[in-house]
Amino acid sequence: MKIVGVDIGGTNIKSALVVNGRVKGLKVIPTYSNRGPEGSIAQIIKAIEPLIKEGEGIGIGIAGLIDSKLGVVRTSPNLKGWNGIPLVKILTRKFRMPVKIINDVDAICLGEWYYGVARGYKNVFLFTIGTGVGGAAICEGKLVLGANGYAGELGHTIINFNGPKCACGNYGCLERYVGARYIVRYARRLIKKRASRLSRYKELSPAIIAQEAKRGDTVAKQVFARVGFYLGIGITNIIALFDPDLIVISGGISRAGRVLFTPIRKTVQQRLLGEKFRHYKIVASSLGDEAGILGASLLFNKKVCPA
Amino acid sequence: MKIVGVDIGGTNIKSALVVNGRVKGLKVIPTYSNRGPEGSIAQIIKAIEPLIKEGEGIGIGIAGLIDSKLGVVRTSPNLKGWNGIPLVKILTRKFRMPVKIINDVDAICLGEWYYGVARGYKNVFLFTIGTGVGGAAICEGKLVLGANGYAGELGHTIINFNGPKCACGNYGCLERYVGARYIVRYARRLIKKRASRLSRYKELSPAIIAQEAKRGDTVAKQVFARVGFYLGIGITNIIALFDPDLIVISGGISRAGRVLFTPIRKTVQQRLLGEKFRHYKIVASSLGDEAGILGASLLFNKKVCPA
Repeated sequence: MKIVGVDIGGTNIKSALVVNGRVKGLKVIPTYSNRGPEGSIAQIIKAIEPLIKEGEGIGIGIAGLIDSKLGVVRTSPNLKGWNGIPLVKILTRKFRMPVKIINDVDAICLGEWYYGVARGYKNVFLFTIGTGVGGAAICEGKLVLGANGYAGELGHTIINFNGPKCACGNYGCLERYVGARYIVRYARRLIKKRASRLSRYKELSPAIIAQEAKRGDTVAKQVFARVGFYLGIGITNIIALFDPDLIVISGGISRAGRVLFTPIRKTVQQRLLGEKFRHYKIVASSLGDEAGILGASLLFNKKVCPA
Repeated sequence: MKIVGVDIGGTNIKSALVVNGRVKGLKVIPTYSNRGPEGSIAQIIKAIEPLIKEGEGIGIGIAGLIDSKLGVVRTSPNLKGWNGIPLVKILTRKFRMPVKIINDVDAICLGEWYYGVARGYKNVFLFTIGTGVGGAAICEGKLVLGANGYAGELGHTIINFNGPKCACGNYGCLERYVGARYIVRYARRLIKKRASRLSRYKELSPAIIAQEAKRGDTVAKQVFARVGFYLGIGITNIIALFDPDLIVISGGISRAGRVLFTPIRKTVQQRLLGEKFRHYKIVASSLGDEAGILGASLLFNKKVCPA
């Protein structure tokens, strides 16, 4: 089947035709989320239109709490005003073609599971780190959607009930410690006090900090030691609850390598109940930016996706 | 099928013959966990022996990290010295009958799901509060065992990475806040400073504190408000990750009623991402002490138990 795969984030919309697991005609355009649902839907249509001629269906991964059964975006922290938008209905009418939607991280997880690093594993937890922190679980060879379709929200699990306020309104969420802006904020605080190559940059990003950490900058390494610790706490909780054999870290900083993975692994080893009796691996994702599109195309494969 | 159902805890072994979901000839004897595996295995045999004549199989729920596939108890916090004990092999040799084992909370969860309050739900998380805090999940109508069989360890998920040390060696585990001894310790600290009916008791227990809270004792109510807050944090994390439609609280204090459930519900409402978009219920278990035996008998029902 030839499927139009779409990955809708707060910043960009990626789209492509997926044929036999290959991404063809990849297109990246802005989401214009500041223009509200109408403006973004116009962009989504623009992203899909040139691919539609060859497509037999449209599969979409989109950030937020998604009701896959009803085809509705309930709410989305990065898409302002998207409350109860019936996206499937809108696009089916427009394109007269079957449309399916799912949470963006669920799509990435399906992609990595079917085509990427998680291939062959039966129990997987994948999470993405970027502006936000998302997660998705596969248990016994099946994507866990949950009763409402909102399972896997790792970013808003609490790792410190006394912790600082998160953008979601809650306190001490994992995202409040490892979301991109908090990583940058921590680095900025450190370079006020200590010499660092990071001071040369006008704008800091987790990717830049990772790069300098790899080059040996002490401050950048300290930032990642701390990020790794927090992620290690989150992963400890995930392993205690889901007992996966594979944990996949996706998103920009997953490419940071040892500066990130060493503190993560150390924390899990110190914190996880029965660690020595468990077989598990923590790895970086392998498909990069195409995982979401590939995964979205799998929404039409009933063996792979229960949604 | 007539199954001998056995529920092995750190204090007692409960056993009975289960016929068509009915518990017959319930027997409760001490585990003698201080006598080590040999002493406790002698007790387990004693618990099973009188029931064996009518039984066609033996199903066992036992506290700890259990490898159901190999039939081995990997380790158990409440059964000293049980490291790598091949319980299935030992009992199969003794009784010449099929034997299956599973984690005790998994068994309780199966029991409540098939015979109790969780009947008909497809996505359930059950947890037990007693000396320890255990958990088990059902996703899309299937018990989640995980890659190693150790899924659902809610008690040792971290709700405060800066928190106090737990008996497991980790810091800030949920169990460190709501395990029986910590509830009692907190109550003792409060009654040193304030007048309370709890001061009349020589020995305190969560059950006594619950009883006095129901009667209106302010200190006892404060204890449960705090326990409810911590459990609310744990449940918030569970709902964010598993998105169940039913959360079942099992164990002694689950019968505390509103003094416990009101602060739990309030905390979840305040803390959970997208709370108003989720359908979920938090309820007390319904089968009481028989849930574990009933669930253990279901180990021979392949439709119900994947182990």
